[in-house]
Amino acid sequence: MKLYVIGIGPGGADQITPRARAAIQDSDMIAGYTVYIDLVRPFIGEKEILQTPMKQEIDRCTRARDAALTGKTVAMICSGDAGVYGMAGLMHEVCADYPEIEIEVIPGITAACGGAAVLGAPLMHDFAVISLSDLLTPWETIAKRLDLAAQADFCICLYNPSSKKRADYLQKACDIMLKSKSPDTPCGTVRNIGRDGEEGTVYTLEQLRDTKVDMFTTVFIGNSQTRVINGKLVTPRGYENK
Amino acid sequence: MKLYVIGIGPGGADQITPRARAAIQDSDMIAGYTVYIDLVRPFIGEKEILQTPMKQEIDRCTRARDAALTGKTVAMICSGDAGVYGMAGLMHEVCADYPEIEIEVIPGITAACGGAAVLGAPLMHDFAVISLSDLLTPWETIAKRLDLAAQADFCICLYNPSSKKRADYLQKACDIMLKSKSPDTPCGTVRNIGRDGEEGTVYTLEQLRDTKVDMFTTVFIGNSQTRVINGKLVTPRGYENK
Repeated sequence: MKLYVIGIGPGGADQITPRARAAIQDSDMIAGYTVYIDLVRPFIGEKEILQTPMKQEIDRCTRARDAALTGKTVAMICSGDAGVYGMAGLMHEVCADYPEIEIEVIPGITAACGGAAVLGAPLMHDFAVISLSDLLTPWETIAKRLDLAAQADFCICLYNPSSKKRADYLQKACDIMLKSKSPDTPCGTVRNIGRDGEEGTVYTLEQLRDTKVDMFTTVFIGNSQTRVINGKLVTPRGYENK
Repeated sequence: MKLYVIGIGPGGADQITPRARAAIQDSDMIAGYTVYIDLVRPFIGEKEILQTPMKQEIDRCTRARDAALTGKTVAMICSGDAGVYGMAGLMHEVCADYPEIEIEVIPGITAACGGAAVLGAPLMHDFAVISLSDLLTPWETIAKRLDLAAQADFCICLYNPSSKKRADYLQKACDIMLKSKSPDTPCGTVRNIGRDGEEGTVYTLEQLRDTKVDMFTTVFIGNSQTRVINGKLVTPRGYENK
């Protein structure tokens, strides 16, 4: 009994690894949020599809597990990397009582890496990845992580920086980081990473604070060494200082 | 004038994206550390190769830049992701005075994602990536980041956890994290990610402290919610608590 949890990268077929593609082809059933299934539809062929809407993650994973228990090889599709805010963890949780199911997680390019490449090289030194979504995490935990990550002079990558209900969360996050980071800290946003309309923009932290972003955007905040070189965001690793 | 900085993922050809492969094929000259060039040799063909040994990063990037200035399309090969402790940043630095060179960074699967997939799903929640190498970063900075990341209850992924000169650095790092994290915190190591001899091992933080690792190993430390499920390291995102 086999269950793949597959990261398909940012979106385009040219960023899906051969390993991910082979696992999809090896599967009898393809499961996942409709938008992600559409991204791999060109090479699904006639396979059985288990589509579930957004925000029904437990149901989605349970149904994939139950299909695997009937002997089908099932592929759960995630955007980006399956192990970074994807379905890899929950799939292990819902299969806890079914050790006979072999779960294979297949990594993909996560938005931190895909977005950083668009902006230049903002994550060249130690960095923290933080989701601003408080659907599953209390805001106090998020705020504490932002505060300590800024104090540690990490480069910071923010996932889920905004939604309709959380229109001011990026501003609140910037205010926390501004306690330890300079208002001139170079920052950037990338919208639609790896898809049509991909767009990277460079800001200062002070400007970012007053910028509206949407849920298709990933946000990058530099460390104290980050600078802008020819329009790109670059965090030196330190070779030039040696 | 075009210069690619390409992340080829953990090692195997099946984790190199089509985009990375196409950029290699589009290039006139392939540059990089010998070991990484060997990994892509099957699809380099008869292209010109610029090999440089380890630890001559500035020289490597400068020579690639100078080749690009003659009109050649050059591909700088990095293992993992080009933008996470790779060459993307330094390449932008050495090209600072040559804005006529178009630098395109092509992301790859970094060890944090590739190794997490081997262990299960340890990075499902907010995480920090920290290199223990003090070649370019003062140990005090590394220690401060470890301390604050542990206080923030981040999952933590450690790159470069050891070398001949730094045999006790992982132990020192664990001692710092043990100030804020429980000795029972589930942890893991992955050796030879995506290559022959790939091996993941699960420990507690207390056990990890007394474990010797080598430079081919990536280390994962859970947060306060991480647990072991059927031998896999899993950090819940929180769906089951909703």
